[in-house]
Amino acid sequence: MHSFYRTPVLNEWTDYNGHLRDAHYLLIFSYATDALMDHIGLDEAGRARTGHTLYTLEVHLNYLSEVKRGEHVEVRTQLLAHDGKRLHIHHGLYREGSEQLLAASEQMLMNIDHASGRSAIWHADVLATIERLAASDAELPRPVHCGRVIGLPR
Amino acid sequence: MHSFYRTPVLNEWTDYNGHLRDAHYLLIFSYATDALMDHIGLDEAGRARTGHTLYTLEVHLNYLSEVKRGEHVEVRTQLLAHDGKRLHIHHGLYREGSEQLLAASEQMLMNIDHASGRSAIWHADVLATIERLAASDAELPRPVHCGRVIGLPR
Repeated sequence: MHSFYRTPVLNEWTDYNGHLRDAHYLLIFSYATDALMDHIGLDEAGRARTGHTLYTLEVHLNYLSEVKRGEHVEVRTQLLAHDGKRLHIHHGLYREGSEQLLAASEQMLMNIDHASGRSAIWHADVLATIERLAASDAELPRPVHCGRVIGLPR
Repeated sequence: MHSFYRTPVLNEWTDYNGHLRDAHYLLIFSYATDALMDHIGLDEAGRARTGHTLYTLEVHLNYLSEVKRGEHVEVRTQLLAHDGKRLHIHHGLYREGSEQLLAASEQMLMNIDHASGRSAIWHADVLATIERLAASDAELPRPVHCGRVIGLPR
């Protein structure tokens, strides 16, 4: 589990009630993915050097609690799995220092070669960092909001 | 299938490459949900009259194509199922007039009583409109990106 991103809840992310809008939970998780990219060497300089970037393929997001304007939140990120070109991750949203999970997002990210627009295997340096993350997260319990299907009982 | 929301892709929704950021696909779907709320009588006046609003419980989102700054897009919305207090919906993102699906989002929405913060059964007028939508969508095929679980092969 890694805390890569923290932020106050900005005015422009909230609705008329001062509550964080559903899409802006995902914006906070998106910035946390940017921070994860920085961590694995796909920051701006790394993207220029490798020609690679990450695309989001799929997002699942569970809303567990309201979050209000001005609150200070952090995203804790867990690497669930990876292969030669994909990362399966989990972002959890928390108030800073709190253990109450406010929202959970499971995501699949794909390494993309910028010039071709096609998927690409990890650059060796990037993969080495991913493998260190995977080793560090290997013993963590699987987050609760994983593997979910949406539906109403028939 | 109902087209409740259309918009150009605004500058502030795009990244350094002029591509729509992952979280801003969801913002467009969020505005489409606002438009759906207007349609079923939970616009601002309806929320004041009924004391009800909709909360997003869960979102699944598949990214299928890049979308660029300035493109004109529309959301087509399908009601998949409902019960006494929940809507199970599907939003599809398209370029205006095109049949190419750019992104797909399956969502579960809950009717909430604003004063108590708890779930509430639909107001009768709202339910009547939901039932008309359900009847109108009953014969549509189920969207492809429904019922998905995220994961890598082991």
